[in-house]
Amino acid sequence: MSTERIYNFSAGPSVLPLPVLEQAASEMTNYRGSGMSVMEMSHRSKVYLGIFEETKADLKRILKVPDTHEILFMQGGATLQFSAVPLNLIGKTGKADYAVTGNFSNLAMKEAKKYGDIRIACSSEDKNHTYIPAQEGITVSPDASYFHYCSNNTIYGTEWKYVPETGDIPLVCDMSSNILSIPLDVSKFGLIYAGAQKNMAPAGTAVIIINKELAGNELPLTPKLLSYKVMIESDSMNNTPACYTIYMLGLVLKWLESQGGVEGMEKIKTAKAKFLYDVLDESKLFIGCAEKAARSDMNVTFRTASEELDDKFVKEAKKAGFENLKGHRAVGGMRASIYNAMPTEGVQKLAAFMQEFESQNS
Amino acid sequence: MSTERIYNFSAGPSVLPLPVLEQAASEMTNYRGSGMSVMEMSHRSKVYLGIFEETKADLKRILKVPDTHEILFMQGGATLQFSAVPLNLIGKTGKADYAVTGNFSNLAMKEAKKYGDIRIACSSEDKNHTYIPAQEGITVSPDASYFHYCSNNTIYGTEWKYVPETGDIPLVCDMSSNILSIPLDVSKFGLIYAGAQKNMAPAGTAVIIINKELAGNELPLTPKLLSYKVMIESDSMNNTPACYTIYMLGLVLKWLESQGGVEGMEKIKTAKAKFLYDVLDESKLFIGCAEKAARSDMNVTFRTASEELDDKFVKEAKKAGFENLKGHRAVGGMRASIYNAMPTEGVQKLAAFMQEFESQNS
Repeated sequence: MSTERIYNFSAGPSVLPLPVLEQAASEMTNYRGSGMSVMEMSHRSKVYLGIFEETKADLKRILKVPDTHEILFMQGGATLQFSAVPLNLIGKTGKADYAVTGNFSNLAMKEAKKYGDIRIACSSEDKNHTYIPAQEGITVSPDASYFHYCSNNTIYGTEWKYVPETGDIPLVCDMSSNILSIPLDVSKFGLIYAGAQKNMAPAGTAVIIINKELAGNELPLTPKLLSYKVMIESDSMNNTPACYTIYMLGLVLKWLESQGGVEGMEKIKTAKAKFLYDVLDESKLFIGCAEKAARSDMNVTFRTASEELDDKFVKEAKKAGFENLKGHRAVGGMRASIYNAMPTEGVQKLAAFMQEFESQNS
Repeated sequence: MSTERIYNFSAGPSVLPLPVLEQAASEMTNYRGSGMSVMEMSHRSKVYLGIFEETKADLKRILKVPDTHEILFMQGGATLQFSAVPLNLIGKTGKADYAVTGNFSNLAMKEAKKYGDIRIACSSEDKNHTYIPAQEGITVSPDASYFHYCSNNTIYGTEWKYVPETGDIPLVCDMSSNILSIPLDVSKFGLIYAGAQKNMAPAGTAVIIINKELAGNELPLTPKLLSYKVMIESDSMNNTPACYTIYMLGLVLKWLESQGGVEGMEKIKTAKAKFLYDVLDESKLFIGCAEKAARSDMNVTFRTASEELDDKFVKEAKKAGFENLKGHRAVGGMRASIYNAMPTEGVQKLAAFMQEFESQNS
């Protein structure tokens, strides 16, 4: 069995920082003298509550979460939030606006239709989600309970470069695939949610950051565990949370701070993405799938002019130690997901591999 | 920092087999030559799907799950199933019967009231849940969509010693705290569910075993991820499941088979519980909290005649390396949770400690 780690460009679950995994392994059977694994701890125990509260405090500090907002950990990933958001927030007027710029925002919109009158505030479907609509192209309804968008479209490789202006309408954002990659003005948002398994931790928890004023108006049939009010009042512990995933998030946050926090991550991710986009811009073989102005720094989508060549690229890349580069079937071609934990070295090597592949296949 | 593991009698999350934790640690940064951690794997990858399908197959074999039933992994623990069960099953008649024999069955009953007409088929509340009603004490409504009970009451230390007879009414059982401790005739059940963090794995997933005939009748407002039909059709992968928790469950199942499967577990758990109940029966200091006929082999509840002495016991036990013996506030006294992964040696030592404590405090 090989002991070498490969470069894992998976869109999620995805690469984690190696020092984090090594620390988790070293603490697995006995967490810091407690005599047990974090996996074995009662979520009400002093040791575990220490881990939990420190993780929350670290996240609050790193993202500069104001006191108006509460951080929640909920199971079910971002997808369960597709239901929780309307269940909790749509009661105000029975209506909500959705920006549809990719697969997940589309799924969120469809799920919300179960619970109220959903209007599409803007859509990039006309060009297979290769772009992000400009502010002028967004219609915000004055009676919407909230406005929902997804800040980074994992499948299509596009990213919102601005925070939409919605006036008094609370802004709800699915940040699953770019949270913690840039500094954020959390006060602009009514609610932010993100599945952990792309940029934060293993799969199994979603992070929710909610303006507490928005909680407490859930529809009567809302499952208890999906009520933000219940979760705020119980500090995310109405039942046992995904304890170990939250511990892993805590380790990732410590690592992230050692890299300069979100300010450091912004510099690093911008540089990493540039390596690949520079290759695409200079290439006569590779074509970027997203419009330049909308390019994601987290998911770089590209292709060649032929599906056969795409397949060849993915296969040869795999042999060379670059895993999970096949694009999603909705776009085809290739996708390199280069979240926070992807080492710069891995991206540089992929860029070099792409250039070599081009010289051998032109 | 101590490198010694203590005996962890936590009611959940709870002790896991040491060899399982050691294996997880050894595979943490590179799972069997894959070049990555299980935490980092796409849930759609060949390697991860191998882990997933093997875990399902092992569970199916160990519990002898018939082909009429499907195994699902869902997030949110047993508590989210308190909502999912009525959302999916109550539509048939709008009515359901609940046996209330402890805290969790009571919570399940209260949550179900959101979704239909709930009738209490039997209750042990009159004696603070120290007993389990006999079959004759159960009223099954002929028009109930299902009958719900909880097979082991973690807080009160009582366990159903029989499977209630409900005729044609589908039987739904929360087995969170005694699943995999005894052989089971799964065909008797319409639906079994269990949070993983007591007898199976770390917190983060629930196992659902459902008769496929029961799926497909969910209420219109059911969140997509709570629909058993959706989960059956997507093989629990409508979105990213709690991948690592399922991997841990897989390791626990391999360990369980090495101990003789559920038949082996039944022998071991009966013997373990007997060590403690024998001490209680011979003691003039300790009093068992549950009626003898209803005693749980998973959670042994006991107390002395004085709260001060209870506190002293818990403190001295902690010093001696027995952790988490304080009883739940609803019962007081002490509780020793001795799930599958608690070594026999730990129980024997606790029994000896109890006897020593008695001789020093009589």
